[in-house]
Amino acid sequence: MPGVDRTVLDFMLFDWLGAEQLTALPRFAGQTAQDYRAFLDLAEQLAEQEFLPAWKPSDRAEPELLPDGEVRLHPGVRDAVRTYLDAGLQLATVDEAHGGLQLPITVGTAAMSGVMAANIAASGFPMLSQANARVITAYGTPRQIALFARPQHEGTALGTMCLSEPEAGSSLGDITTRARADGEDAAGRRFRLTGRKMWISGAGQDITPDTIHLVLAKIENADGGLPEGTKGISLFLVPKVLPDMAPGGAGPNDLAIAGLNHKMGYRGISNCLLNLGEGTRHRPGGTPGAVGWLVGEPGQGLAIMFQMMNEARINVGLGAAALAWRGYLLSRDYAFERRQGRPLEDRRAPAPVPLVRHPDVRRMLLAQKAIAEGGLALCLYTARLADLAAAAETEEDRATAHARLDLLTPVTKSWPSEFGLEANHMAIQVHGGYGYTRDFDVEQLYRDNRLNPIHEGTTGIQGVDLLRRKVMGDGGTALAALLEEIRATAARAAGRPATASLAPGLQGAADAVEDAARHAGAADDPLQPLAHATGVLHATGHLVVGWLLADMALVDGAAEARLWTARHFHDTELPRVAGWLAPLREGSRAALDTPESAL
Amino acid sequence: MPGVDRTVLDFMLFDWLGAEQLTALPRFAGQTAQDYRAFLDLAEQLAEQEFLPAWKPSDRAEPELLPDGEVRLHPGVRDAVRTYLDAGLQLATVDEAHGGLQLPITVGTAAMSGVMAANIAASGFPMLSQANARVITAYGTPRQIALFARPQHEGTALGTMCLSEPEAGSSLGDITTRARADGEDAAGRRFRLTGRKMWISGAGQDITPDTIHLVLAKIENADGGLPEGTKGISLFLVPKVLPDMAPGGAGPNDLAIAGLNHKMGYRGISNCLLNLGEGTRHRPGGTPGAVGWLVGEPGQGLAIMFQMMNEARINVGLGAAALAWRGYLLSRDYAFERRQGRPLEDRRAPAPVPLVRHPDVRRMLLAQKAIAEGGLALCLYTARLADLAAAAETEEDRATAHARLDLLTPVTKSWPSEFGLEANHMAIQVHGGYGYTRDFDVEQLYRDNRLNPIHEGTTGIQGVDLLRRKVMGDGGTALAALLEEIRATAARAAGRPATASLAPGLQGAADAVEDAARHAGAADDPLQPLAHATGVLHATGHLVVGWLLADMALVDGAAEARLWTARHFHDTELPRVAGWLAPLREGSRAALDTPESAL
Repeated sequence: MPGVDRTVLDFMLFDWLGAEQLTALPRFAGQTAQDYRAFLDLAEQLAEQEFLPAWKPSDRAEPELLPDGEVRLHPGVRDAVRTYLDAGLQLATVDEAHGGLQLPITVGTAAMSGVMAANIAASGFPMLSQANARVITAYGTPRQIALFARPQHEGTALGTMCLSEPEAGSSLGDITTRARADGEDAAGRRFRLTGRKMWISGAGQDITPDTIHLVLAKIENADGGLPEGTKGISLFLVPKVLPDMAPGGAGPNDLAIAGLNHKMGYRGISNCLLNLGEGTRHRPGGTPGAVGWLVGEPGQGLAIMFQMMNEARINVGLGAAALAWRGYLLSRDYAFERRQGRPLEDRRAPAPVPLVRHPDVRRMLLAQKAIAEGGLALCLYTARLADLAAAAETEEDRATAHARLDLLTPVTKSWPSEFGLEANHMAIQVHGGYGYTRDFDVEQLYRDNRLNPIHEGTTGIQGVDLLRRKVMGDGGTALAALLEEIRATAARAAGRPATASLAPGLQGAADAVEDAARHAGAADDPLQPLAHATGVLHATGHLVVGWLLADMALVDGAAEARLWTARHFHDTELPRVAGWLAPLREGSRAALDTPESAL
Repeated sequence: MPGVDRTVLDFMLFDWLGAEQLTALPRFAGQTAQDYRAFLDLAEQLAEQEFLPAWKPSDRAEPELLPDGEVRLHPGVRDAVRTYLDAGLQLATVDEAHGGLQLPITVGTAAMSGVMAANIAASGFPMLSQANARVITAYGTPRQIALFARPQHEGTALGTMCLSEPEAGSSLGDITTRARADGEDAAGRRFRLTGRKMWISGAGQDITPDTIHLVLAKIENADGGLPEGTKGISLFLVPKVLPDMAPGGAGPNDLAIAGLNHKMGYRGISNCLLNLGEGTRHRPGGTPGAVGWLVGEPGQGLAIMFQMMNEARINVGLGAAALAWRGYLLSRDYAFERRQGRPLEDRRAPAPVPLVRHPDVRRMLLAQKAIAEGGLALCLYTARLADLAAAAETEEDRATAHARLDLLTPVTKSWPSEFGLEANHMAIQVHGGYGYTRDFDVEQLYRDNRLNPIHEGTTGIQGVDLLRRKVMGDGGTALAALLEEIRATAARAAGRPATASLAPGLQGAADAVEDAARHAGAADDPLQPLAHATGVLHATGHLVVGWLLADMALVDGAAEARLWTARHFHDTELPRVAGWLAPLREGSRAALDTPESAL
């Protein structure tokens, strides 16, 4: 694939994660590895032929808001996504009952990685739509599924997630978009929505005639007030084009793209300010507000939306890992081609040597490779947890997978985002000055990847989620189970000469994370550990990635390259873990106690 | 200043570095602190009124190569630099004998920091010109000074440094620009130059009528060949506009801007491919080649150019620290204004609190502040070393300062560049999604700052310079002297209750760096430590910055804020040192031994 090494992807899927074993589960019965490979082939072809060519041009020509209120995308993006939908790739993991292929999420995730590497921004359209349609099929009524998920399955609509507002970004309890009851019809309980949604990726597009918005809003109290906090949030289906049963019949809903954000990168997808019910497309005489139908029960909005958010979080990590991969491959090629300087051991050599002869360049290639492979492995491992959480045979297996998935989601979101960006930083360094120019792809990869530590919850938010909710919240049970498995891998590594050197670093990092969790749990003031939650997040991510790299190196017949990558990561990256955890362990309170006047 | 806190700058200059004491040296006799403050006021005013307003517009409208071969800058940049020259700021540190103010480099550097924070790209014009003119006054003949330095002092010319070529970036021994002897005249030994220079900042501009290029080239052997390696490199003065004594008289030299690089950021200054002697402006009947005059002796080119390069390296660090400052101030303001979320300790608080109430945001503000203050302190400390190396009263004092300056130059260049970028990364995180949009200044700061780890020698090159030349090269003498001073500071800190907590971290980091240097010196294979030179560079930088932050906190009457910043850095950053040094210490060879097929 353009940017993700297919050999490595196949190794991870089939040799390491045993994708074939998934076919033993009832949900995937009758499927074969051959099916999975064929699907990956199709995705690879689309990534290369459709998504990649549109990547650079769509960075230079951003989406445009036209005078009629419609958004025009770069035609290359429009056509690539159109082709994706026509090929039916959005049906990969959809239930057969809804016309889908019912493939494992593991396989769909692997296929998506190549599309993301080719064009992360354009991949956002199908990614969001798939997650949107999955929420509708999970929580919607049969009629809602038919009206709002099916068009996405069939490729006549795309979906978005509308959470943030100008004054409520990460703080969803403060949203003020209001929903007023407006009766009931075949599509469900109908409401009229008014408010402004911010940062809505894909809200304006010219790929499909319809766009299905999943909108968080608060149902007005009898006195016209809004309920306080997150418990008052409900979820609504708000299509751009209203179906027949809407009051006044089929036609445009009262939605308006009020503006587009102009981003550092990630420019192929529109990012919109979406106004609901401001009257732009209001029908004369009708009730004011955009028409929306309730999904699930009132007050369940955030809980339901978390399914979409968690899926999107894993996909953010996946995209970041994919960009790291592409930057790694580009800088590797460059390092083998470009001759510059003399080897350190022979400054008088007659001719310049390829960059790859310089130890610091080799270091940067290995570091990138470890981040790219480790990040991708983390995302595929997490995707497999999602498969098992939904489709494992016993309740216990599903619960076990679910607990691990919950624990790792913040790590899977943020580790590739932060370190994939670091990888792209190194890809630029390998290119020298050329890497800073817009003529070289690594420049744009870096700008694109810079979004990933922000959207779907910043790194800081993921850190608090991990430490407070996932570790301190369950008394460390899920973490303990993970650490046990990591230690078992370290023991296996210790038992083989080729991998023995990996064991101490892994053990040490596991001990350090365990120790930090213990300190956090025992802290008199829970704010003290939480002030260092981001460090815990990085440390846990490094531990988990070090574990997965070792685990892959332990696969029978794994290529020698696996082993070198793991060794480099264990030698140079795992020693960083202690440093991130030190301020928590040592009880540093500087971040808490510094007076505001001294900030 | 816009982006650098003047109070902090004044503290560093007067209370910490004792700029007034410099006036006891003969070179600065008769100057007063009042002179220095007045100069800073002037620079501050220019930064705010001229450089800042041009910053954003010149990012959007890059320099243009016109059909006549001239380069048109953004008019805001042109006018800002013009005003700077008209105000005579370029004369700050120039000898009185050459019409300058003969101020300490420490003061000139402090003044420049504000200009850089306001508009790093535009500041490149005077920065390069000042370094260029300084080389000419140090190594040129009186006539060369009059012809080529004086116009820069007077503001009718700007200067550039022309080192790299398309096939020789960091590897200057491989340059192929050739110089053929062409007689002698009042300006010196005349040569004709042909070749292509790459990455030339400021080579094309419409601020001053003339541009003085300092060009590295090789003097042709009798057989028409070029000498091998760096020893064959000579330095030439190649003006855009030839003076009277040139063959054919005054008029355009045979130089052509063959193209402009399109960069991620740092767009206000042109970055050019400069062709010499390709005949574009050749006079009919004349000898081919651009006219240039030799500076110093043949073969001395690189040694002389290192003076300019080292000055530029310190200025790269300064610019990176200045951008970190501005990002810190912007995100601090934002964190105090923007209300979002509930405090961790009270999730049910009735209203959103300012971002600054969230521990992770406080952590990011303190981390940025430590990087900004530490980076600026490092650059000013290094500038003071440059003053003492040139103007201290005894030979011994000058030698001591020179050794320290040599040791720290790679650190001063790279530490603010790498960590200043990390600071700008955090400035974006504090802004959330807004920080990723081009409407907010932190977005551009981040793109601008991304150049700094590359130009004037990448971070990898600085690492090897530090470890091989500056540490292993002198048997660790200069490092030992530095460590002794750091330990003395740690002992002083230990003796006061308020600073006692800083001592152990500083001691530990000093021990770790010493230990790494010892391992490096004792290694059987010198390549093993050199493969981890970048880690040593980061570790040394952290140690030195930790030292300077502690030293500033120890100043009598230092604000409480100094102490908190130092504490946060010592608690959270110094523990990272051991991690960077571990792979050297533990003898990791993965970067060296991984076969090419496994990269």
